Amino acid sequence: MESGKRVSPFVSLPVTRLGSDGATDMVVVEEPLEILINGRNLAITMRTPGNDEELAAGFLFTEGLIKSADEILSISGAGNQVSVELASPPEVERRLTMTSACGVCGKASIDSLYANGCKAVPQGDFTITAATLRKLPEILRDAQTVFHQTGGLHAAGLFDAEGHLELIREDVGRHNAVDKIIGARLRDGSPVSNRLLLVSGRASFELIQKAAMARIPMLAAVGAPSTLAVETAQRFNLTLVGFLRHDRFNIYTRPERISC
Amino acid sequence: MESGKRVSPFVSLPVTRLGSDGATDMVVVEEPLEILINGRNLAITMRTPGNDEELAAGFLFTEGLIKSADEILSISGAGNQVSVELASPPEVERRLTMTSACGVCGKASIDSLYANGCKAVPQGDFTITAATLRKLPEILRDAQTVFHQTGGLHAAGLFDAEGHLELIREDVGRHNAVDKIIGARLRDGSPVSNRLLLVSGRASFELIQKAAMARIPMLAAVGAPSTLAVETAQRFNLTLVGFLRHDRFNIYTRPERISC
Repeated sequence: MESGKRVSPFVSLPVTRLGSDGATDMVVVEEPLEILINGRNLAITMRTPGNDEELAAGFLFTEGLIKSADEILSISGAGNQVSVELASPPEVERRLTMTSACGVCGKASIDSLYANGCKAVPQGDFTITAATLRKLPEILRDAQTVFHQTGGLHAAGLFDAEGHLELIREDVGRHNAVDKIIGARLRDGSPVSNRLLLVSGRASFELIQKAAMARIPMLAAVGAPSTLAVETAQRFNLTLVGFLRHDRFNIYTRPERISC
Repeated sequence: MESGKRVSPFVSLPVTRLGSDGATDMVVVEEPLEILINGRNLAITMRTPGNDEELAAGFLFTEGLIKSADEILSISGAGNQVSVELASPPEVERRLTMTSACGVCGKASIDSLYANGCKAVPQGDFTITAATLRKLPEILRDAQTVFHQTGGLHAAGLFDAEGHLELIREDVGRHNAVDKIIGARLRDGSPVSNRLLLVSGRASFELIQKAAMARIPMLAAVGAPSTLAVETAQRFNLTLVGFLRHDRFNIYTRPERISC
């Protein structure tokens, strides 16, 4: 049985929908979970709170750190931390390898972004009309050549304020598609401070972090954002749009960059 | 400009579709990319090959390891490796933190799974009918209470051969939802060796790895698999189903566990 208090996996957040007042949207919670093994930090993963002890046990098992449940002497979760006592904790060498598992995030908090040199995106003069914004998913989709062949991967597209697609990258990982776009612009020196980044799926913390580091003022997602994505966008002055479709979208932060 | 030979982001793989012979499916390529900084391994990320130098440059920038393109003395990619020369490479402490970034995978190859104690799943006696299989996505969807509220997260469900949903977990990360299910079963001691795991999105290497470690004989995904997922399922004797819908699905490996 799980111990610890029951947490809600979603919260209600205010959103802006053009033409309506005071809307809210239920947003899925994303928070870092720190897994401690015999008192030492093993890993931090971004997750939706709930069943954290199961998560820690499953992680240890599927990553090969334990072979059976018998090796777990005790396991207890509270808040964003799970403490596990193992009969024989993994040695340091092993621990290092495991820390770099997929989905494990060492940048656990928004504050660590500040420490990493990330600053708020300047207000700037980037604005886009709602009509242009609504056209972007179809433009991105039409340009996804690999997706059309496989039905199987994510895309990120860099658009200007007039809705022109300047660059598209497709990858099994959204974060890779975003890194490829930012890397291409970094290498050719052309600015992204007046550009919009559109991603094919959901908007997680990690994508907002990458956009903020590159000082891109607006990130739009075809899918849903997480709570930490909304909070991070707010802190770094990014406009975050979710559920972008041809006929509607939600604005979670900084709606002033979108005009009717 | 990118150097290095042009690689295809997808390949054609054989699939089994019940009632038809010799079908193939275009599958998106997923392979590990090793990023070397001044000759030292910084990170390994699972990615779709192509634009690897952009990916490395973007990764260094968005993770805060470089502040501008000027810090890159040279960058060259070949195969699954990108070598970057930096004017001032990050010190070890920093390097460690960065290795644990989201989406970065330290288990770069299938062979490392063997080293990790992962063995082929026994053939066992788990079989499921095609008719039962096709019903599972709707059952999972109906049980996704948080998704219904937010439209924003992944789910994994554990089913028996009769199509009964025994356990469901929802999370911003598919790998977390899978770890929560496996962790729950690990803790209560009930077997998963005759169960099917269904995931709401795509099937990546990481999910097959987790299923194989837990010795679950079949993984089905509503979305597409990657090449590395297919290859890993083959090697570890898992049945892998993709694009599972109410009226169709593709079987990528071990079709003998599915009957008409």
